[in-house]
Amino acid sequence: MTRDPAPQGGWRTYRQQYLREDLLAALVVSVLLIPQSIAYAMLAGLPPQVGLYASLLPLMAYAALGSSPHLGLGPVAVLALVIAQTLAQAPPGVSPSEAALVLAAEVGIILALAAALRLDALAALLSVPVLHGFETGATLSIAASQLPVLLGSPAKGFELPALLESAAASGFAFQPLAAAYGLAALLLLLAARRWLRGMWARLAPLAVLLGAMALAAASDALSRGVPLVGTLPPLHLGLSLPRLDAQLWLAMLPGALMVALVGYVSSLVVAESLGRRANVRIDARAELRGLAGANMAAALSGGMPVAASFSRSVLMADAGSRTRMTGVFIAFAMGGAMLALAGPLALLPKAVLGATILVAVLSGLKLGPYRDAWRYAKPEGLLMVAVSLMVLCWSVTAALGLGVLGSIALLLQRTARPHVALLGRVPGTEHYRNVDRYEVERLPGVLALRIDESLLFTNARSLTDVVQTYLAPHPETRRVVLQMTPVNAIDFSGLEALRELHDTLARREIRLDLSEVKGPVLDRLRAGHWERWFRGRLFLSHHQGMEAQD
Amino acid sequence: MTRDPAPQGGWRTYRQQYLREDLLAALVVSVLLIPQSIAYAMLAGLPPQVGLYASLLPLMAYAALGSSPHLGLGPVAVLALVIAQTLAQAPPGVSPSEAALVLAAEVGIILALAAALRLDALAALLSVPVLHGFETGATLSIAASQLPVLLGSPAKGFELPALLESAAASGFAFQPLAAAYGLAALLLLLAARRWLRGMWARLAPLAVLLGAMALAAASDALSRGVPLVGTLPPLHLGLSLPRLDAQLWLAMLPGALMVALVGYVSSLVVAESLGRRANVRIDARAELRGLAGANMAAALSGGMPVAASFSRSVLMADAGSRTRMTGVFIAFAMGGAMLALAGPLALLPKAVLGATILVAVLSGLKLGPYRDAWRYAKPEGLLMVAVSLMVLCWSVTAALGLGVLGSIALLLQRTARPHVALLGRVPGTEHYRNVDRYEVERLPGVLALRIDESLLFTNARSLTDVVQTYLAPHPETRRVVLQMTPVNAIDFSGLEALRELHDTLARREIRLDLSEVKGPVLDRLRAGHWERWFRGRLFLSHHQGMEAQD
Repeated sequence: MTRDPAPQGGWRTYRQQYLREDLLAALVVSVLLIPQSIAYAMLAGLPPQVGLYASLLPLMAYAALGSSPHLGLGPVAVLALVIAQTLAQAPPGVSPSEAALVLAAEVGIILALAAALRLDALAALLSVPVLHGFETGATLSIAASQLPVLLGSPAKGFELPALLESAAASGFAFQPLAAAYGLAALLLLLAARRWLRGMWARLAPLAVLLGAMALAAASDALSRGVPLVGTLPPLHLGLSLPRLDAQLWLAMLPGALMVALVGYVSSLVVAESLGRRANVRIDARAELRGLAGANMAAALSGGMPVAASFSRSVLMADAGSRTRMTGVFIAFAMGGAMLALAGPLALLPKAVLGATILVAVLSGLKLGPYRDAWRYAKPEGLLMVAVSLMVLCWSVTAALGLGVLGSIALLLQRTARPHVALLGRVPGTEHYRNVDRYEVERLPGVLALRIDESLLFTNARSLTDVVQTYLAPHPETRRVVLQMTPVNAIDFSGLEALRELHDTLARREIRLDLSEVKGPVLDRLRAGHWERWFRGRLFLSHHQGMEAQD
Repeated sequence: MTRDPAPQGGWRTYRQQYLREDLLAALVVSVLLIPQSIAYAMLAGLPPQVGLYASLLPLMAYAALGSSPHLGLGPVAVLALVIAQTLAQAPPGVSPSEAALVLAAEVGIILALAAALRLDALAALLSVPVLHGFETGATLSIAASQLPVLLGSPAKGFELPALLESAAASGFAFQPLAAAYGLAALLLLLAARRWLRGMWARLAPLAVLLGAMALAAASDALSRGVPLVGTLPPLHLGLSLPRLDAQLWLAMLPGALMVALVGYVSSLVVAESLGRRANVRIDARAELRGLAGANMAAALSGGMPVAASFSRSVLMADAGSRTRMTGVFIAFAMGGAMLALAGPLALLPKAVLGATILVAVLSGLKLGPYRDAWRYAKPEGLLMVAVSLMVLCWSVTAALGLGVLGSIALLLQRTARPHVALLGRVPGTEHYRNVDRYEVERLPGVLALRIDESLLFTNARSLTDVVQTYLAPHPETRRVVLQMTPVNAIDFSGLEALRELHDTLARREIRLDLSEVKGPVLDRLRAGHWERWFRGRLFLSHHQGMEAQD
């Protein structure tokens, strides 16, 4: 069921047999990547060929530095939204394309630094609810932004309020012929999804694009007022440094941090889940290097920030890509597409691109996780919804900030209020369980407690009070035994709290014993010379602790 | 050994016998509070009588609302430092005294809100290393700031750089006679600490103050250029609202948040530790109300923000205070002192006040915790030092910010890299322990792991990889049993990770079983309908899990 892994060590090991599979996968992906890279460039407010450039050298850079054979690299819808909002911050007099190059360069540098400083762990800051809430919010906001494009309306904007405002300002005007193009394309694409399978389904978006160009050319759509992509500057795929302008670089920085974080985490997640299926080992740090290289390449070759698209990655894996060579082959295909499309693209109605985007993003829409998260843990479900709404109605930066701070707050609050169990013995066994959940027997004069959390600054101050509340109904208690299996760590505040508890009990002539203290925890306690004040005993098993005589 | 608790429910229960003890304690504390409140007012850059006002009505307000019979309320050195730095932010044209009233009002309102919204848990944000690092840094910075005062030098400043700069600017000039007053007072106070005991020792600061006033009056120190406190505005202990000026209130807000947090936490800590010794129950929320009332009272009666002084609280407990009536008695004593000192205070040489402050704060200096924290956990020790240095060299706001963010970062990092133990059976028992630490026997084909952390977004993404690294050397494994005792919680990201692990193992035809899952954790998993995908088994004890047949 698992195939032998793709070559990890350089290309010397590249085998004949991989070539066929990689070439086929490259063909399949390119067919989808061509329309998407054009569309997502437009989505980010950039000229379409920028998307094509971004799908050329960056893929080769990743192939050289990355570790996943399945990563559908290139322009990504969610990032296009972040990019669009970031480019809006560019100082006057700077063209979007120039700003996009700086943005890509910063993303590349940030990721390279993260790789050098081994900061890949920071990816953990994006919890599942936050990442999914963010991506879904972005998807919906993108879909909304494409409705006016689809209808040839002048209305613009990603956040709903701005969008409605601008639609109202234009008196909800739309261009009938453009709308016809858009809706026709939409229906064709949906029909293809519904009735076509395999390669034919995948060809649909490209076919619709080519068909629309032909029709627009034949019917002279331009003179009839259909908004077209318009003539592009001539191809000039040369390397050049992005504009060095401090003010510009500063303005792009916040967006760059977000693109880097979201792009890296979402790419890593898809690389790892696909890698596990194909039994390919993914190296988080190699992924950082790969994405860093890809974005720097984009910055030098007239592209835009890139990451892995979920849908294209899954497609690439399904199509049987075995090695990162696939990316190189895709790059060549894109080069060909560029030469072929340079002229005709000018005639493509924007409404058709809008339809392509709409179908592409909505096909990836998953609402199930909202229900699952809400069922599993209300606060996390709420956070997920809040993040989505913020993307949809306010700004991606605010949404991401809320998400990260929110997850941290939930973590703090969880450790601050630990669950505490009064323990009793399961009759006839050496096992001790919560008296509220099991039929167990307690030992008079001994209070056995299990505090289900590490002893940390968030809960340290309440430790003594918690134990005292359990002592109150048992005044005859002469001994307290804490079962320490749930205590994975004791920080300095926790150590002070343990000492405070020990001394408070001592003043009441109650002895404090500990059972099943973890090795690493005990090492710390010893390093802290706790034997200077701790008068209790340690037991390897809680049962021994209960059986022991005072 | 424990005395019967002080009356909790109103004053009807106030007993004759308490009266004597409370009166005595009040006398002892007042003798120390008079010089300290004058000195700390000056420390905060306020006229001395402000300190006396702050020790009058606020104490009564706390007596009515608080819950501790030991809280040495009034001006506090550490807060005086924060207050001084905050008052410096006041807009031009506002006198320090006016700003101090606004600050006190804001502190009162913040604490009242915290009490109403049950935010007392936020106190947990100040970990022991941060609180101690902050207080020690403040103590040192205060001591440094008093050296020039002691020598009659014009140099001013709390942060070392500013202080040195201003000393250099004045050419390290000092006033010989003032220095004589200061050093003489210093020697007397140190001698008193060294050789006097009990009441006599406590009388020393007040005696030195009175003596210095007399001497200054007799020797006409003013005309000889000794900096004196100077004539105060006439006493007017009337209630009046603080100045309502949006700009001023806004400028004071950051400082108010810090005073509220640090004041509340440090007061709570001392109230609880003294309360436990005297077997008095402290109610965290009542403490919030008490401090809120005290600060509002200060704002209305010409005072400054107040909290509990550690030294005075310990003194109050040692002196045998039984009920909060002590605070009321102290207030009356302060009223008397005010009337008596109003005139003479003008003649008090500042150098002598400087000496009082120096001795008072340095006597509370504890450096041991730095060593303890460093020994116990290097990162926390470093954080403690960093916070102190920041207070000493930069600003209290930055220091507190660093402290809070630092403790949170350490917590995240701790949960992100959990300790993992490969388990084996302790021969002849049903106990399973880390193979690296104990002589245990493993069962072929079954991999028993214990991941010592809750499954949270910080570590979720690495779960599968961790398990796979342990699987690598044991290709014969057909079953993985996770012992779940250390898993106190599984958040939504952790749930996804568990599922990912389950599916990855399933693809390799390895079964995933769980043992000793905690009740609350299991409840969540069920709420999340995990039975839809989980094919493994649950075992009440890890031993059963190991014995079970596939």
